[in-house]
Amino acid sequence: MNVDFINPFLDSLLNVLKTMANLELKPGKPNLKKDNLAKGDVSGLIGMVGPQTKGSLSITFEESLILEIMNKMLGEKPESIDEEVTDLVGELTNMVTGGAKNLLSDKGYEFDMATPIVVSGKNHTIAHKSDGQKIIMPFSSIYGTAYIEICFES
Amino acid sequence: MNVDFINPFLDSLLNVLKTMANLELKPGKPNLKKDNLAKGDVSGLIGMVGPQTKGSLSITFEESLILEIMNKMLGEKPESIDEEVTDLVGELTNMVTGGAKNLLSDKGYEFDMATPIVVSGKNHTIAHKSDGQKIIMPFSSIYGTAYIEICFES
Repeated sequence: MNVDFINPFLDSLLNVLKTMANLELKPGKPNLKKDNLAKGDVSGLIGMVGPQTKGSLSITFEESLILEIMNKMLGEKPESIDEEVTDLVGELTNMVTGGAKNLLSDKGYEFDMATPIVVSGKNHTIAHKSDGQKIIMPFSSIYGTAYIEICFES
Repeated sequence: MNVDFINPFLDSLLNVLKTMANLELKPGKPNLKKDNLAKGDVSGLIGMVGPQTKGSLSITFEESLILEIMNKMLGEKPESIDEEVTDLVGELTNMVTGGAKNLLSDKGYEFDMATPIVVSGKNHTIAHKSDGQKIIMPFSSIYGTAYIEICFES
């Protein structure tokens, strides 16, 4: 899995949160280790299928961070993760993946997106099950941490 | 979303668990309500993309049930959900979706599968975010409950 394929997802996440929530996340160190798991309180997940490849993406947020994103985007801050928050996580997952899809299409890589699924639950972990390589990358802010994880197999 | 499209997934789940784990699950009542959420301790999720449709599937297990499935399939019963269990959930998700894909292909419906993602976390909930209709169906056994949820939009 080359960097050409990964960077559009990372750029798209930074771009969506900056544009939509006026929030600048600080990218951490990418991790390729197999036993490293994204951990958080709410996650958006989506499948991707292309002519030459298939894969999956997840974006996992700590509760404090997603509630602040909700506040910055919609001007309301629920006390905990409710249906409005999970709707927002689904939309963010679509936006980030759609943004990466456009960037990759310009480079000649094509894939279609499935529909997003949102998981809620204190301190859950995500494992992408694929023979392909996966990359997990943390993004930090004063409000908490997000993790993006991308996995493709050919 | 017609029953032609759903039944193959339900049949495939029953068939996989009967064949692989010698376990007969009892189908419950399907639920189309929007506010009904699958709840459990470990879930396998997969995206699906076809020429006319896209969607998502999840299978959620209570811990006691998946540990017994592990026991029946592999002759070992871990004390809690570990990486072997999440690997098994990923494989079951692939098998159930692949079985349904074959049944649907015979009827002229085609879709491709993304790679599965497995979520672990006590008592998490799953929400499929799509404009399309979704169906959630419980399956019970003396070891615990599983939920399958399928969502398609055209």
